[in-house]
Amino acid sequence: MRRFSIRQSKKSGLPPGTLIHVGQRHVEHPSIWVMDYAPDHLDEHTDIRIDDALAWLKSPNVTWLNVVGLDADFIGQIGNALNVHPLVLEDILNTDHRPKVEEYDDYLFIVCKAPRHDDGVAVEQLSMILFGTGVVCFHERGSDLFNALQERIRSQRGFIRSKGVDYLAYSILDTIIDSYFVTVEMINDTVDDLEETLVTEPTTDTLQALQHCKRHAIMLRKAIFPMREVAFSLEKIGAPFFGSDVRPYLRDVYDHCIQIMDTIESIKDMLSGMLDIYLSSTSNKLNEVMKVLTIISTMFIPMTFLAGVYGMNFIHMPELQWRYAYPAVLLVMASIAGVMALFFKKRGWW
Amino acid sequence: MRRFSIRQSKKSGLPPGTLIHVGQRHVEHPSIWVMDYAPDHLDEHTDIRIDDALAWLKSPNVTWLNVVGLDADFIGQIGNALNVHPLVLEDILNTDHRPKVEEYDDYLFIVCKAPRHDDGVAVEQLSMILFGTGVVCFHERGSDLFNALQERIRSQRGFIRSKGVDYLAYSILDTIIDSYFVTVEMINDTVDDLEETLVTEPTTDTLQALQHCKRHAIMLRKAIFPMREVAFSLEKIGAPFFGSDVRPYLRDVYDHCIQIMDTIESIKDMLSGMLDIYLSSTSNKLNEVMKVLTIISTMFIPMTFLAGVYGMNFIHMPELQWRYAYPAVLLVMASIAGVMALFFKKRGWW
Amino acid sequence: MRRFSIRQSKKSGLPPGTLIHVGQRHVEHPSIWVMDYAPDHLDEHTDIRIDDALAWLKSPNVTWLNVVGLDADFIGQIGNALNVHPLVLEDILNTDHRPKVEEYDDYLFIVCKAPRHDDGVAVEQLSMILFGTGVVCFHERGSDLFNALQERIRSQRGFIRSKGVDYLAYSILDTIIDSYFVTVEMINDTVDDLEETLVTEPTTDTLQALQHCKRHAIMLRKAIFPMREVAFSLEKIGAPFFGSDVRPYLRDVYDHCIQIMDTIESIKDMLSGMLDIYLSSTSNKLNEVMKVLTIISTMFIPMTFLAGVYGMNFIHMPELQWRYAYPAVLLVMASIAGVMALFFKKRGWW
Amino acid sequence: MRRFSIRQSKKSGLPPGTLIHVGQRHVEHPSIWVMDYAPDHLDEHTDIRIDDALAWLKSPNVTWLNVVGLDADFIGQIGNALNVHPLVLEDILNTDHRPKVEEYDDYLFIVCKAPRHDDGVAVEQLSMILFGTGVVCFHERGSDLFNALQERIRSQRGFIRSKGVDYLAYSILDTIIDSYFVTVEMINDTVDDLEETLVTEPTTDTLQALQHCKRHAIMLRKAIFPMREVAFSLEKIGAPFFGSDVRPYLRDVYDHCIQIMDTIESIKDMLSGMLDIYLSSTSNKLNEVMKVLTIISTMFIPMTFLAGVYGMNFIHMPELQWRYAYPAVLLVMASIAGVMALFFKKRGWW
Amino acid sequence: MRRFSIRQSKKSGLPPGTLIHVGQRHVEHPSIWVMDYAPDHLDEHTDIRIDDALAWLKSPNVTWLNVVGLDADFIGQIGNALNVHPLVLEDILNTDHRPKVEEYDDYLFIVCKAPRHDDGVAVEQLSMILFGTGVVCFHERGSDLFNALQERIRSQRGFIRSKGVDYLAYSILDTIIDSYFVTVEMINDTVDDLEETLVTEPTTDTLQALQHCKRHAIMLRKAIFPMREVAFSLEKIGAPFFGSDVRPYLRDVYDHCIQIMDTIESIKDMLSGMLDIYLSSTSNKLNEVMKVLTIISTMFIPMTFLAGVYGMNFIHMPELQWRYAYPAVLLVMASIAGVMALFFKKRGWW
Repeated sequence: MRRFSIRQSKKSGLPPGTLIHVGQRHVEHPSIWVMDYAPDHLDEHTDIRIDDALAWLKSPNVTWLNVVGLDADFIGQIGNALNVHPLVLEDILNTDHRPKVEEYDDYLFIVCKAPRHDDGVAVEQLSMILFGTGVVCFHERGSDLFNALQERIRSQRGFIRSKGVDYLAYSILDTIIDSYFVTVEMINDTVDDLEETLVTEPTTDTLQALQHCKRHAIMLRKAIFPMREVAFSLEKIGAPFFGSDVRPYLRDVYDHCIQIMDTIESIKDMLSGMLDIYLSSTSNKLNEVMKVLTIISTMFIPMTFLAGVYGMNFIHMPELQWRYAYPAVLLVMASIAGVMALFFKKRGWW
Repeated sequence: MRRFSIRQSKKSGLPPGTLIHVGQRHVEHPSIWVMDYAPDHLDEHTDIRIDDALAWLKSPNVTWLNVVGLDADFIGQIGNALNVHPLVLEDILNTDHRPKVEEYDDYLFIVCKAPRHDDGVAVEQLSMILFGTGVVCFHERGSDLFNALQERIRSQRGFIRSKGVDYLAYSILDTIIDSYFVTVEMINDTVDDLEETLVTEPTTDTLQALQHCKRHAIMLRKAIFPMREVAFSLEKIGAPFFGSDVRPYLRDVYDHCIQIMDTIESIKDMLSGMLDIYLSSTSNKLNEVMKVLTIISTMFIPMTFLAGVYGMNFIHMPELQWRYAYPAVLLVMASIAGVMALFFKKRGWW
Repeated sequence: MRRFSIRQSKKSGLPPGTLIHVGQRHVEHPSIWVMDYAPDHLDEHTDIRIDDALAWLKSPNVTWLNVVGLDADFIGQIGNALNVHPLVLEDILNTDHRPKVEEYDDYLFIVCKAPRHDDGVAVEQLSMILFGTGVVCFHERGSDLFNALQERIRSQRGFIRSKGVDYLAYSILDTIIDSYFVTVEMINDTVDDLEETLVTEPTTDTLQALQHCKRHAIMLRKAIFPMREVAFSLEKIGAPFFGSDVRPYLRDVYDHCIQIMDTIESIKDMLSGMLDIYLSSTSNKLNEVMKVLTIISTMFIPMTFLAGVYGMNFIHMPELQWRYAYPAVLLVMASIAGVMALFFKKRGWW
Repeated sequence: MRRFSIRQSKKSGLPPGTLIHVGQRHVEHPSIWVMDYAPDHLDEHTDIRIDDALAWLKSPNVTWLNVVGLDADFIGQIGNALNVHPLVLEDILNTDHRPKVEEYDDYLFIVCKAPRHDDGVAVEQLSMILFGTGVVCFHERGSDLFNALQERIRSQRGFIRSKGVDYLAYSILDTIIDSYFVTVEMINDTVDDLEETLVTEPTTDTLQALQHCKRHAIMLRKAIFPMREVAFSLEKIGAPFFGSDVRPYLRDVYDHCIQIMDTIESIKDMLSGMLDIYLSSTSNKLNEVMKVLTIISTMFIPMTFLAGVYGMNFIHMPELQWRYAYPAVLLVMASIAGVMALFFKKRGWW
Repeated sequence: MRRFSIRQSKKSGLPPGTLIHVGQRHVEHPSIWVMDYAPDHLDEHTDIRIDDALAWLKSPNVTWLNVVGLDADFIGQIGNALNVHPLVLEDILNTDHRPKVEEYDDYLFIVCKAPRHDDGVAVEQLSMILFGTGVVCFHERGSDLFNALQERIRSQRGFIRSKGVDYLAYSILDTIIDSYFVTVEMINDTVDDLEETLVTEPTTDTLQALQHCKRHAIMLRKAIFPMREVAFSLEKIGAPFFGSDVRPYLRDVYDHCIQIMDTIESIKDMLSGMLDIYLSSTSNKLNEVMKVLTIISTMFIPMTFLAGVYGMNFIHMPELQWRYAYPAVLLVMASIAGVMALFFKKRGWW
């Protein structure tokens, strides 16, 4: 988390709309790729120039522009070309922004968070501007999140080719939300593994792993919670951005968000229960250790005392001369041990 | 929980409306049974074909179609025949869906969760499509949940035969909600048993059993909470799906949901109180163990020291020659023990 | 709590409106008593027949019918005679119902919870149907809760005789709410006693008593919370059931509910503070025990070691022959004890 | 708290509007004092009769009547003379009432809670009836809370003399709310003192003091929370009781309430943090004690064992005859102690 | 916190609108500086007189007046000159006020909290009055918070010079909110450092540092929470104070507030997880200490007992004369130690 605030605080004092990339920079070379399709037509190009991108966007077909890499200058040029509000550009570059929807006169600006799993669990930002003739997506860095969606457009599966821009926007959202299921499942698996470890051999590492899972769950909830609001807002916005045939699909996205949130809550409940078990098992182990110490100590201490008594060097100790004193003392010692054993037995300490 | 996410994440990247069964598959062979009734008429058939099912549904009588087993192809065929939105079919197959109501132009789609008790406590999904002329239920697998309801239809008890489709839908909902009482009671019994165990002989197993109960309670609450919203929505929806005479009954279902939620809250309160008692009794036991150790140790340590002193081999130890030194030392030791005993008594350690 | 669920679950599968008594059965023989009054007139009869009861109810005077004992058949007959909805009768018999108000065309159905103190703290259900000409109350079993109210009607105190049916209904509610104050006071007294015990001599019994109080407080809150909603609804309902002159009184009932809830919250806050003190005092006692053990052990262990050294039987131990070796060793031992004592003093362990 | 419920429960069964003083009785002899003022006029009398009080109230000047001492008969007479609803009188006498505002046709009834600091922290009730020509205040007992306000009226400071009845009512409220700052400050000081004690020398008394502060904070919050609602309601009520020029002042009272609530929340947060530190420092002390015990014990136990071995009386123990056995054994013992010391050093136990 | 309440309580009893500075006084000599600008014009003066300040404010250019130092008399004069409500002046001087917006006929009054980092984390108050022709800011003391903003006005960066008064007000707000990012980042860094310390070497100091961070986080949240409401209100207020082109910027401020709140919540979550780890690691250390004690004690106690037995001075102890008794006893002792070691190994205590 440290990196985030340092970058964000850098902007303190700068005029609003100043374009500075807040967050980790992932790609040196920003690039654009485009998919432009109609039911009977598909154009696909990578690494195109900004001017060409605009030309594609103005075409009557459904255009899906993807800008990979958040370079401030590059984004600034695109923003000017698209005639987008400076604050929108600022939000695109601030990759710690909370998901939201903003309605402008001729476009809709959507900020999303998608989970990544390359190393550990993390979320990355994905901004989207929805125009009447296409969707422009801004990615922090390249990923294979949308491979399946691209494939569907190419292969005409799922009638996406026959649908409009709103359906494309929905498909992108749906892909993002679906990727949360994968992440939630990963955490769930870790929790299941931890649960077994907890029973067999709990250590401080287990506790730290619990805390890690909890933090991941909190991070995901922090991301999915506003995503739900985004889905809700989009369903409400409707015309002219979303046709009435797409609204049930947006409702479906909303339902999925709630399902993910429910699962995250379940994970958190499980984790807090596991923490209780961990703490209790730690305290039980202390109890067990103490019992062993107490049993051994209290059984031998009186016997040792007795041995000490008869180790004293007084001249006048009549017992020392007795014939069967020694075995008698051993017997007494054994009795003491026996009584102690019964006492501990009665208390249920064995 | 592991199974759920794996299945759900499998769908990631597929087009919406793709029919894949998410959840555990329980029945190999999906089948349909039907009850078609009017006040003076009852038809009942099992294992009918899809075409016949539709014919029954179109009849003017009240028709109750039951599809047992969630096979994607099979559900797809039924869905097409019934002209149902693809997302509805997707939700039917996704058995991890949250209960909800969706209003469409000519049907109402209801997703429910019903508890099962075959092995442990679990919830299963039951989807329902309410048409003007009948109800179509989708079961994950066969169960005897509705036996009593079928019997009532057969025997004309409870005037269900004289009522319409809306009353049938209500009766199904009511049966589902009533089955929660059985489950809640099971958990309640377990909690009562645990409470006794907690007082007599608490172990780590008790704690794990507490956690199990808590998890079941949370699972049930997660299921009943949206069920309450379903009941509330249905009461609000009214015409044309529900006649005004059925609305008090829906209100009753809503009341029952709240009653179940209250009971679950009580169970959770009891469990958290029991956890406190468990932790406290563990710590009390440690206290008791420590007291025994301390009493025995501190009583004997000074006496053993004294014995050690007179076990030293110095040539010049005048006491060793004294006539009554030995009994005197024994007396001193007894006094030490006595003083200690009084000290512990005063502190209330016996 | 066990009894509740078993009974409630018995209903699972039965048609709605089936009259089965859910809860504990208290009276074998249900009976009816009636008070029928006007400013200048009072009729009072016990053990009347159902037909007579109806006759009284139809009279223009204010009629207060009381049905004591929840026998399913008996309630069924009364319900039919009064032309009441079957679900109302079902709710009257289900004595685990949540307090609520339901408005019907020509009557108001009110479910209340009143605390009992015969043995421990418990709540019992009291249902009320408010007609234009009288109130019908359904009691689980006879109690002296309303003795004072009856006396007021008899003696014409509190101008109740000059008021209408709505004022009678209010008076019944007011009596119920006032009885909560008695119960809350009982719990409060117990908590005060426990607080003293906690300081002087806390045991596990104290903890269990704390948990009992907490459970009672939770039970009362669970009962009073919906009672508050009942009072709020009644104030809102107004005409024709409640005249405008009675509404300030209903507001007063509402205020009392909130006052009771506030007091219960205070009790809960006190209890949770007491739990903290209990746990802390337990851990303090352990600390004290450990200190005693540590002080005694660590003071004597080095001295005992020294005694052991000079108890060794080596031939060549020059110290053993020295003239003042013995007193010197004793001195050394005393010094060790003194240093230890100072050390513990410095650490503040005495 | 015990006193409260006993008194309140006494009313159980009595007709509503029965005037019984609920709470602690503070003054034997109720009395009335009056201030009647206009910009150029001031009349001030103590111990006046009820009839005179009414005469003052009817005068066109601003009249401030103060009834000190809650005697049921006395209040009853005043209430009748003022033609006030019986429930208002009941609420005046019930000094455990929650703060509230009630609007009647020709007067406004306000119940307030003001903190007292004579002994410990407590709140007392202050009721106010706001007529068009004056304010009637009901005090549980005499206090100097309003001395400064009286002085301002006398000296014409703060233009209160040129303002109307609504400004007087506001001034009373403002004085009450300001007195909360004094109480909150007292608690805050105690908390600050406790924080220092906590670091230097925490005892169970510290914990109990923490709990006391927490209880006081909760008590104040319970009082100020509905006071905020009172301020909010008064701002909303407006004409004819409050002129538009007084409304910003009421808004100011509301702001002060929120400021007090915020401070109380901060105090509660600090207290819960201090509880954590207390518990942790207790457990740290146990740790320290255990370390001392363990270090001393484990260093001497092996050495004592060695001494014991050579204290055995076997005939055939060759070492006993060796010339340098004794110093060699001492060396071995020293080595054991050294190794132990290093071991503990490595574990960071010193 | 102590200082705050003492000051606030001083006002108790004074008439409303009495100007007393509540809070810490930072500057002896209050002063005013002004920036007056238009697209092609900039006037900047420090230490001007009140009369001149008003003249600047009345000019048609955008005027930014800054009053540094809260002297009651000085603020009073300015207030009278500006014709501002006395309560506004009171709020300016009460530097413990909660952030808020108040709309008056011809000006908008805004109370803000800005974080400071000179020593530790603290918030200071900054009040703002927004007139049609300029903004008047009231600072507790001089700071460099607005240096960058002044520089932007001077250098015409960020087109602020071409914008109106509303944009200036927004820029001030934006600067304040941005400064929270710096503070949140500081806390975040401390938390990160603490997390490492927690793993390597946790002490009570770590715990106190955790509590400090938590308190700072709570303090910031207490400040930013109403700031969010301020931003929200300003966005809603609109004309005539804010033009429609500035509203997206206010929305942006609102988004930043939520982002800061989210980050603070994350910090709080992390801190509570770290507290759990701290407590658990403390208890683990106790466990480890106890294990060492138990292992050493229980291994040597039986051996020491055996040595004690053969140190007894009985005449008739046949073993003492046996030839290989001594090595045999040593062997027995070694066996005991071995068995113990195996026992502890099996329990996993090594």
